[in-house]
Amino acid sequence: MAQQLKNITKRSDDFSQWYTDVVRNSGLVEYGPAKGTMIIKPYGFAIWELLQERFNKEFKKLDVENVYFPLLIPASLFNKEKEHIEGFAPEVFTVTKIGNKILEEELYIRPTSEVLLATHFSKEVKSYRDLPLIYNQWVNVLRGEKTTRPFLRTSEFLWQEGHTLHESEQEAVKITNEILGVYQKVAKELFLLPVIAGEKTAHERFAGASKTMTIESLMSDGHALQCATSHYLGDKFSSAFDIKFQGRDSQWHLGYSTSWGISTRIIGAIIMTHSDDNGLVLPSGIAPIQVQIIEVKETENVTNASQLMLKNLKSKFRVKVDNSDKSFGFKMSEAEIKGIPIRIEVGPRDLENNNVVISRRDNREKVIVPIEDVEKTIIKMMSEYDKNIYNLALENTKNRTWKAETIEEYIAILSKEQGFVLVPFCGEISCEADVKEKTQTTSRCIPNDVKQVKGKCFNCGKDSQLRVYFARSY
Amino acid sequence: MAQQLKNITKRSDDFSQWYTDVVRNSGLVEYGPAKGTMIIKPYGFAIWELLQERFNKEFKKLDVENVYFPLLIPASLFNKEKEHIEGFAPEVFTVTKIGNKILEEELYIRPTSEVLLATHFSKEVKSYRDLPLIYNQWVNVLRGEKTTRPFLRTSEFLWQEGHTLHESEQEAVKITNEILGVYQKVAKELFLLPVIAGEKTAHERFAGASKTMTIESLMSDGHALQCATSHYLGDKFSSAFDIKFQGRDSQWHLGYSTSWGISTRIIGAIIMTHSDDNGLVLPSGIAPIQVQIIEVKETENVTNASQLMLKNLKSKFRVKVDNSDKSFGFKMSEAEIKGIPIRIEVGPRDLENNNVVISRRDNREKVIVPIEDVEKTIIKMMSEYDKNIYNLALENTKNRTWKAETIEEYIAILSKEQGFVLVPFCGEISCEADVKEKTQTTSRCIPNDVKQVKGKCFNCGKDSQLRVYFARSY
Repeated sequence: MAQQLKNITKRSDDFSQWYTDVVRNSGLVEYGPAKGTMIIKPYGFAIWELLQERFNKEFKKLDVENVYFPLLIPASLFNKEKEHIEGFAPEVFTVTKIGNKILEEELYIRPTSEVLLATHFSKEVKSYRDLPLIYNQWVNVLRGEKTTRPFLRTSEFLWQEGHTLHESEQEAVKITNEILGVYQKVAKELFLLPVIAGEKTAHERFAGASKTMTIESLMSDGHALQCATSHYLGDKFSSAFDIKFQGRDSQWHLGYSTSWGISTRIIGAIIMTHSDDNGLVLPSGIAPIQVQIIEVKETENVTNASQLMLKNLKSKFRVKVDNSDKSFGFKMSEAEIKGIPIRIEVGPRDLENNNVVISRRDNREKVIVPIEDVEKTIIKMMSEYDKNIYNLALENTKNRTWKAETIEEYIAILSKEQGFVLVPFCGEISCEADVKEKTQTTSRCIPNDVKQVKGKCFNCGKDSQLRVYFARSY
Repeated sequence: MAQQLKNITKRSDDFSQWYTDVVRNSGLVEYGPAKGTMIIKPYGFAIWELLQERFNKEFKKLDVENVYFPLLIPASLFNKEKEHIEGFAPEVFTVTKIGNKILEEELYIRPTSEVLLATHFSKEVKSYRDLPLIYNQWVNVLRGEKTTRPFLRTSEFLWQEGHTLHESEQEAVKITNEILGVYQKVAKELFLLPVIAGEKTAHERFAGASKTMTIESLMSDGHALQCATSHYLGDKFSSAFDIKFQGRDSQWHLGYSTSWGISTRIIGAIIMTHSDDNGLVLPSGIAPIQVQIIEVKETENVTNASQLMLKNLKSKFRVKVDNSDKSFGFKMSEAEIKGIPIRIEVGPRDLENNNVVISRRDNREKVIVPIEDVEKTIIKMMSEYDKNIYNLALENTKNRTWKAETIEEYIAILSKEQGFVLVPFCGEISCEADVKEKTQTTSRCIPNDVKQVKGKCFNCGKDSQLRVYFARSY
């Protein structure tokens, strides 16, 4: 782009403005013309494609099959599962006409597709032999949002939604947890996000679910973000949509279902966790360009050397030569703003000694290496780079995790800092609503890896069975 | 599925019913709950994914970058390009509210995204240095349709839509043709469809285009189907949306744009070209399962042999063992209906002689081969299989292509048979509308590979410069 690179607001001055500056200056997205929508530009979409590739690979191991279900849901169909419609009704985009022709029945744009899948399952399944059905789709969904921010909260977003149907409760619960495991694994390995896995309280549960599992992560400003969820739906949708199958005992049974998803929102989480005052910082696994070769000066020697380097590296890395007619300084800044993990500077003087300069985006460390060592230097540097940014995020999470026993202690912590606070909690919806009103915080999850001990609820003082993380969240 | 396989209507008895029977029995799709929508089941969606993979590879060679643009278009924006809105307005699905809240401005669900891209381009482009922009997105689009049929004509369909912007007319025309070349190449190599490439007449041109290029194919019943189109949009959208850039001469210039797409409709073309009275016939390149291993009887030896075969073949082919508890006969019919190119029967008696039976879907040829020859037999058989189904389609096209000089000759041909008829044509919109009214046929294209000679229009008798294929079409 010939546009000038704009200044990025300092993260410590205004986190929210910093985020917007980074997202737009790095060329990930632009605003769409309809309120709350976003245009995902090539650089942003390439991240999404790398994410899709990895999840498709992981899902395949669990025999997930990709499908496509329609965008539109007839209103009458959506109204079949009561809790579900209550959860989504105020947010649904509603089609009332085609051209000038008013429709007899209104059509909702999917905010999620449980009812479509449930309707299909009810027709498709006759016998236990037809089970399990393990489907997933990569699609756009819409939910009306008042305040929107690119990736984090948009009226239209992209996601994968998995929907499965099983013969038994055990099998459905098993896949709910396996999928959570996939999310946790990919978050750590690909997004370099330290996450807490656990169960949502009743207050935060998905509309229509029996149980919602979640992975939660802490952004660099200490606000929590829900990264992905996996829902055990029990037989609720099967009851509402009459999904019955003839079991091994020749009797008719209701099926057990699950649903699960991760959305473009995760890109927001990655940005808010790793990026800095100079722009984007991307984990190498999802960086569309992992290595940028930049010519210090365009001489024939330099161009030949960088083309040769490109040729040698491209089977191992996503590598590009920036051969635009911008200045060297501009190219260096742009690669920095775009969060390209590794830059190679090829200059005439270094070349005379058969050297190039390689630098890391995270800590700006620079080394001069002989050309024959470029590949092994990158491999080593990229691994250290990924480790470092993961560790920085982990450290931030650790430094921002506290415990409180009472609401007073809780408020005192949050008055100074933002982060996860582990509290004893009764789990009641009304009590959590009360906490939310007093503090603008909600429970994030009942963590899997924390021992659940009896105590007194930090807010209402009643008997509590749970230890729960609360936080202010995105 | 435990569902009974249903009878497939004979193609010669009722082509339309035959098509529906094949599509549904083979497990490609089901109808969605909203009128004119379809659920693409795993088997159908896997075909789409193989197609996407191939096109992404081809597009990459032309430096195409994938993006995502919003689903919804504000009404005022859509109205900016006059011809475009006239072409699409009656078909657009219109969102008028979110929940119960009436929107101030109506939002259209994209029937295509030229106006979104044009708006974006107008903001994004400042200088010739920013050009070309070569974008593509894989998305769902909606157009209200009265009569719908799975894949062929649905209110919602999936497609890729390419949108590009260039500095010069030549460059834009060049990519319009290059993309047409990609469609033609993939149609032949992957879909095994013989196509005619050419230009659309004014009557059939895309709403808003200066020039529409197309590939057209003949189905086994002799009706034509438009398989993909590539539009040169000139500077029409640039004028309407004020897409200007500073050129090499420091003056401001309008950009030249193109758009191009192929949709799920192509799956309908593949089915109607290759399939037969026994069900689907799929080109090996897009067959989700290329080789099905079927156990004649489930003995330990048989199971071991088929598992070993699976292990040996799976790096080379998309191969599966059908180990459901259905009967051998059922499995064989199911593989046939699903159009799996190659079946391997593993039976205890053949195994005693170290043999298996391999059969082709197209001509049902069977061979008994030693286990060590399985791989090379499949390679040879699959190549012959693909050649054969392409040649059958080519032969059908050749047998159904005629020439006519007058409307009387033309009507006489179409009264006996369906197919392409090459005629001298004036190219006038009104004349083509007249032909359409008289014969329910339209021009398919001005073929690239036919010499354009002067003559008299077959319908109005005026001077004609063109030789054009007309046909009844889907």
